[in-house]
Amino acid sequence: MMARALRLAEKGAYTTRPNPMVGCVLTQGEVVVGEGFHVRAGEPHAEVNALAAAGGQSRGATAYVTLEPCAHTGRTGPCADALIQAGVARVVAAMRDPFIQVDGEGFAKLEAAGIRVESGLMQSQARALNRGWLSRLERGRPWLRIKLATSLDGRSALASGESKWISGEASRLDVHRWRARAGAILTGAGTVLIDDPSLTVRFEDDTAFEPPMRVVLDPGLATVARGRVREGGAPTLYLHAPDAKPPRGMAAQTAVAPVHEGRFDLDAVLRLLAQREINEVQVEAGATLAGAFLAAHLVDEILLYVAPVLLGDRARPLFDGLHIDEMTQRLNVQIVDTRRIGDDVRLLLQPQAPSA
Amino acid sequence: MMARALRLAEKGAYTTRPNPMVGCVLTQGEVVVGEGFHVRAGEPHAEVNALAAAGGQSRGATAYVTLEPCAHTGRTGPCADALIQAGVARVVAAMRDPFIQVDGEGFAKLEAAGIRVESGLMQSQARALNRGWLSRLERGRPWLRIKLATSLDGRSALASGESKWISGEASRLDVHRWRARAGAILTGAGTVLIDDPSLTVRFEDDTAFEPPMRVVLDPGLATVARGRVREGGAPTLYLHAPDAKPPRGMAAQTAVAPVHEGRFDLDAVLRLLAQREINEVQVEAGATLAGAFLAAHLVDEILLYVAPVLLGDRARPLFDGLHIDEMTQRLNVQIVDTRRIGDDVRLLLQPQAPSA
Repeated sequence: MMARALRLAEKGAYTTRPNPMVGCVLTQGEVVVGEGFHVRAGEPHAEVNALAAAGGQSRGATAYVTLEPCAHTGRTGPCADALIQAGVARVVAAMRDPFIQVDGEGFAKLEAAGIRVESGLMQSQARALNRGWLSRLERGRPWLRIKLATSLDGRSALASGESKWISGEASRLDVHRWRARAGAILTGAGTVLIDDPSLTVRFEDDTAFEPPMRVVLDPGLATVARGRVREGGAPTLYLHAPDAKPPRGMAAQTAVAPVHEGRFDLDAVLRLLAQREINEVQVEAGATLAGAFLAAHLVDEILLYVAPVLLGDRARPLFDGLHIDEMTQRLNVQIVDTRRIGDDVRLLLQPQAPSA
Repeated sequence: MMARALRLAEKGAYTTRPNPMVGCVLTQGEVVVGEGFHVRAGEPHAEVNALAAAGGQSRGATAYVTLEPCAHTGRTGPCADALIQAGVARVVAAMRDPFIQVDGEGFAKLEAAGIRVESGLMQSQARALNRGWLSRLERGRPWLRIKLATSLDGRSALASGESKWISGEASRLDVHRWRARAGAILTGAGTVLIDDPSLTVRFEDDTAFEPPMRVVLDPGLATVARGRVREGGAPTLYLHAPDAKPPRGMAAQTAVAPVHEGRFDLDAVLRLLAQREINEVQVEAGATLAGAFLAAHLVDEILLYVAPVLLGDRARPLFDGLHIDEMTQRLNVQIVDTRRIGDDVRLLLQPQAPSA
């Protein structure tokens, strides 16, 4: 039942931001009497949708919910109250809600009303599902995913800089699904100048999604007058150095980010995005920015598309500026998922904390 | 039934060399009445083993065999005769035997005796199984597999040359299974001097295998006095330049291979190994020799262990001397198999013929 609730929750992946994804399954014995998920911020929560579907069958039911029901009134009323009013007998939650206005209050309210409460079922899966939202709440910065395409011999582009079509069509479509999960797609001025990507989500069907914000790290605001990254119906934010001045009448948003020795303070950049309620950032940039995030130990996840091609030893490295001279300095990563995507192999990796 | 015969055939992978692997399943209707495979050169063929297992039930049976039954007397009698004598009614073969002394003669003999013969069922799988043996017969050179271990960013070693333990324990055990399939493990003098591998098959259980020959490309015979590659109970062959002279009283074999401009003629090296009845060669060497085989378009298969580690842009490339300056020159490969091996990912790759 909890696995079912988690699958329901994930249906909101492209739309619930900045809220967490939540799914709820109501059962009477082995029978599912109602289910729902949180679709969009400002709209009803998962529990309310499931209660509506169950109608009178909510009375005495067990609610499997992927996150502690809320106890506060936000844009919608408290779910804990709704569960109590519907006469639910038992609530099984995957995890406690660390949000300051909930944080155990939901469970307390339910228990005070005589409802049996259990928490922790499939907690690690529930945490993985909302890793972006949890990162923002618990660490004050978004979950950072770097998307990269590489040849089998670890090269991101030829020496000339040519990199188009390293990965296949299926991988390029897959990237759009990962973009749609993210609150922001981050790139550098160099990528805007050289590759000129639009960084929008483009689905082949009518799947609903909230367009993620494009974020360009552009210290001198050198690229604000050009580039497809300004087009396509999604917001764009240029982060620039304190000494750069945005031109008048600019349509896109701009914000100052701290710069140290000519380089952005990447940790500060991420904190700034968390303040804007960005849960997940997907970096789509060149080897230099990818290497800088990695060297700063700010990378939570690497989405690596490995194309069935060899580019040779003159081609550009996957990460620039990542200097490792001894085996003890090597960066260990965990391979979380391996999948064939068309002719490519997609690896989902999580860097391990440096060993002490 | 043919899939079963192929699985049986593969049981001989470590022992049949230089013979092909062959499996045979005898059926009466849907019932398997006997099965067998070719274990070792000089010992009975698959058909004879299956007929012995079936006994009197061979009469009127259908024989599924992964290769055309032989028609000639080698170290054992012709299998076609044995099938005829046992009264088999129908023979289904996966492929014709290209060996000059068979090459359709087996089928002809069976048909002349009134046995129904079909050929081609699961032919591509049967060809893939014996790709080494077929390569030697059809191309006059062994099937060449390069085994490599790489970091996720395509690096084979640190700048210092340090490369030990890039891949995990499970991958290192897996390599021994691939070694055992090969007739020869080929390396370069540089690897003998730096890594000093023994290049023997070491299984953790008592699985039977024929020890593959170790082949060292050593133009000046600089390494013959040292190295674990001379030890361990498997034969060793040093290939050297015409102007080098083997020291007297050497235990290991030596042979001259042609050298052009200071480098071995790698195609000639492979033809020389085919003359010694080597079906499959597994190259376990450094980036230079791997790059040279690849640049010469002599690589049939790359066995790539990708370890969950990043080594950075100063580390050594996977292939040395592989210079590609335009996307049209890129080396396309096909990903034949992807598998998790412990913490690593194992990719089996086949380079594609260069496009015209």
